[in-house]
Amino acid sequence: MGLLDYFRTARKSSAAVAKERLQILVSHDRIDIDKPSYLPKMQKELIAVIRKYVDIDQDAVSIRLEQKGNREILELNVVLPD
Amino acid sequence: MGLLDYFRTARKSSAAVAKERLQILVSHDRIDIDKPSYLPKMQKELIAVIRKYVDIDQDAVSIRLEQKGNREILELNVVLPD
Repeated sequence: MGLLDYFRTARKSSAAVAKERLQILVSHDRIDIDKPSYLPKMQKELIAVIRKYVDIDQDAVSIRLEQKGNREILELNVVLPD
Repeated sequence: MGLLDYFRTARKSSAAVAKERLQILVSHDRIDIDKPSYLPKMQKELIAVIRKYVDIDQDAVSIRLEQKGNREILELNVVLPD
């Protein structure tokens, strides 16, 4: 199953969306993991882009950054204002 | 299984990463789907952010944007230069 398919089918069971949500996932498959990562910096700029479109609190953004082997994953979850 | 878990486990079977890759997924759960979407505009700015960090060709970016009910999904796949 492709990643896009996962997004497509996820939460199919929840009929109603209670809150507007925005989720951003960045997955970086790296060859040379000794090079410094740019995802932590990029994360700030991605949030800045989102802020141009929606008025979000810093509190409303949850951020996770992790590394698994050669893959680095950045996850931003934003609960949008009503 | 959370979406992050999906990313974590995906491609576990492929031992080597042949190319550096960057994948960005934006999922927007919307309440009022009659409002105009800002993802197409946001997409351009997200690519602009990526370009600050890596030198990518326009050809190297594949873009998908789709809507499924209240969920709108933007997928950017970038093959990074060697």
